[in-house]
Amino acid sequence: MTPIESLAAALPAGAVLRDPDVIERYRRDSAADPTAGTPLAVVRATCTEDVQEVLRWASAHAVPVVPRGAGSGLSGGADAVDGAIVLSTERMRKIRIDVATRTAVVQPGLTNTEVKLAAAEHGLWYPPDPASVDISSIGGNAATNAGGLCCVKYGVTGDYVLGMQVVLADGTAVRLGGPRLKDVAGLSLTKLFVGSEGILGVITELTLRLIPAQSPASTVVALFGSVHAAANAVVAITAMLRPAMLEFMDHASINAVEDHMKMGLDRSAQAMLLIQSDAPGAAADEVATILAECEKCGATEVFATDDPAEGAAFTAARRAMFPAVEKLGSLLLEDVGVPIPQLPAMVTGVEDIADECDVLICMVAHAGDGNTHPVIVFDPTDADATDRAHRAFARIMELAIDLGGTITGEHGVGRLKRDWLPAQLGDDVMALTHRIKDALDPHGILNPGAVLR
Amino acid sequence: MTPIESLAAALPAGAVLRDPDVIERYRRDSAADPTAGTPLAVVRATCTEDVQEVLRWASAHAVPVVPRGAGSGLSGGADAVDGAIVLSTERMRKIRIDVATRTAVVQPGLTNTEVKLAAAEHGLWYPPDPASVDISSIGGNAATNAGGLCCVKYGVTGDYVLGMQVVLADGTAVRLGGPRLKDVAGLSLTKLFVGSEGILGVITELTLRLIPAQSPASTVVALFGSVHAAANAVVAITAMLRPAMLEFMDHASINAVEDHMKMGLDRSAQAMLLIQSDAPGAAADEVATILAECEKCGATEVFATDDPAEGAAFTAARRAMFPAVEKLGSLLLEDVGVPIPQLPAMVTGVEDIADECDVLICMVAHAGDGNTHPVIVFDPTDADATDRAHRAFARIMELAIDLGGTITGEHGVGRLKRDWLPAQLGDDVMALTHRIKDALDPHGILNPGAVLR
Repeated sequence: MTPIESLAAALPAGAVLRDPDVIERYRRDSAADPTAGTPLAVVRATCTEDVQEVLRWASAHAVPVVPRGAGSGLSGGADAVDGAIVLSTERMRKIRIDVATRTAVVQPGLTNTEVKLAAAEHGLWYPPDPASVDISSIGGNAATNAGGLCCVKYGVTGDYVLGMQVVLADGTAVRLGGPRLKDVAGLSLTKLFVGSEGILGVITELTLRLIPAQSPASTVVALFGSVHAAANAVVAITAMLRPAMLEFMDHASINAVEDHMKMGLDRSAQAMLLIQSDAPGAAADEVATILAECEKCGATEVFATDDPAEGAAFTAARRAMFPAVEKLGSLLLEDVGVPIPQLPAMVTGVEDIADECDVLICMVAHAGDGNTHPVIVFDPTDADATDRAHRAFARIMELAIDLGGTITGEHGVGRLKRDWLPAQLGDDVMALTHRIKDALDPHGILNPGAVLR
Repeated sequence: MTPIESLAAALPAGAVLRDPDVIERYRRDSAADPTAGTPLAVVRATCTEDVQEVLRWASAHAVPVVPRGAGSGLSGGADAVDGAIVLSTERMRKIRIDVATRTAVVQPGLTNTEVKLAAAEHGLWYPPDPASVDISSIGGNAATNAGGLCCVKYGVTGDYVLGMQVVLADGTAVRLGGPRLKDVAGLSLTKLFVGSEGILGVITELTLRLIPAQSPASTVVALFGSVHAAANAVVAITAMLRPAMLEFMDHASINAVEDHMKMGLDRSAQAMLLIQSDAPGAAADEVATILAECEKCGATEVFATDDPAEGAAFTAARRAMFPAVEKLGSLLLEDVGVPIPQLPAMVTGVEDIADECDVLICMVAHAGDGNTHPVIVFDPTDADATDRAHRAFARIMELAIDLGGTITGEHGVGRLKRDWLPAQLGDDVMALTHRIKDALDPHGILNPGAVLR
């Protein structure tokens, strides 16, 4: 038996897939990186023991392992490496809601929406809501510490992870944390594995904190004559209150979504803010403040509604931005974040970069927490255009770092942003990161090339 | 020059203290462990550079360093080691509130209350509130991932730490995170250092997330004929809603506080719950639910008030429990936590242990998150009583572990609970913890004997 045959024999029938057509489907995540490698095999684990078996085998044979959730990542974090095992957790789909501890114990293969729906059956809410809720896996959400639209008020994935089971590089499975809001026994290892992008271990179960269902939200839509004016309104609003959602779309994004959905968005607006308040008993006051601040910052039109369906329609428009823009060409998806006061400089800086590099950039932002998604659209058959797109991609990250920000607010470093990480973190933090990586994965078999060189 | 003289020469005048009277005051934290060692010197750092100087010197001379905040810790985490430097951050007291990013940048020496007051001047709130708010330092709060009364709704210290400056064992100072709600560039190192109890580095600055000021709270007080009935009410209430505070006091605690404060608490009650709701517009509904659940669980008396002053008086009574009980004898302070459904078994189990070990145990609890503080009172001049007290201390931790809980919810492992950590975490998690410790502090100079052997 070859080594891969011995692995197949040790796993449930059908777990190891080697068909070239299948392998092709598991080579890349949603960043569609053309440089992704070709794996030796795909393994679809059904349980923690399968994951342990794969990692013990990989350690013994020095084979790299690329953990993969739903493959919806946008930074190449799940891109295959030549000769690797792509280890998919998509078939691990158990979930148990415990109302008494207000927690969900979930396997990594469920989508975020599936977790939300299971919690909602008990009147509970799992808040983190990446725009990809319907397609991204909860395991991938934890591995990237995913954010979303509600983070501005409700925090990110890591704020909801109370515990996990994780398989280490040598195949050891450990349980960290548990259904306890407070537990300081030992190091905060649970939090270390959140956002570790598969380079420290493979998460096989999560214990998630749930909270009572969200109150119905009121929605404000405000249009502006410039991205700068809209960004100023964001700074003004967030200094006064904490909205439940504060999203930004620029002119190009509004028009791409309108082409896609035909919902009557104002195509002439240079920028739109979509703002929600869910403060029970105080939403009317918050809405009044939001409207006043938008008008002070020069909004050309403002509109408020208490109708949840109307609010949901605008939120759906915002979430439709990526699929809408995908129709325009190949994409480089940015995910830079800055401290809120730097948001006006960031959005106008992106406009300048688009001009200077002569590329189309559609921009949306989780503006309330300073996390912007400039999306660079280009024609991949045009070498010069591709080159200009990559130049813009780099310059946007450099601008974010210059403004005291981050190269990635929620998508992760993956492979696409790896080369810019040292510029943000500095040599000492990179050295610290390598020390932890080397301590936990001494042979470097876990997702090599992601996050770190 | 001796090595310690060379250190003194490299630091600001007066930073290095060697007077035996001064050293005596820095030998122990508030756990008053009689086995604490005697340090070589106390260094009161004034800035990050001082901390770097101490750690470079300590690395060069292989001298252990015990980081110390306000010395209010309850697990011996800041107990001196013979021949060590006790490195106090009490003189590092700068603070800056940034309203635009809703963050506080603070040095470690401020008390929690000082941070709260500085935030309140801008209409902002720093929620974490260990009972020691007035005396514990914010640096110590971060190093232990301190909890408190509001965690049941608002989370723990780590949920509010967005960034930090930390000095590593070799004297390197690194900046992690920053004033960004979302930042997934690299590993979650900020979260790893929170709760690391000085064994991975010395925190010299924190960037803390602030939120809008809390709405006025309504308060419910409910009395019960048994601890079990009160614990059942906790389980019932937390399954229905998320209170802003849910505290428990047993008969002995009520009486100790009444002796101390003379505020008219009912000395006959076997248990008291103190519950707050701060849900704007919904507090009246929540209070009605809380009252109904308490009555269903057999409360002998219930009382509700919207008067914040009255609510604050009861909260002050709860916070006075430790000082009140201190008058009764020497104390062993427990801090065990269990998943909420196990709370009735935990509190009745503690009563059984008190009977079987023939010791007085006064119990309070942050009941809403399952975190109990059984306080064992004993006469240290009575060898048999001291022995029985230590037996009860161990048995309470063993009970918590058996119930799927933790040996420490918020105080930290320190030196007093170190020997029980492996029973909770298991060998594999202990090995993982040692790998990280060894990677970051290869010579073991940082707080040796705390958390780990």
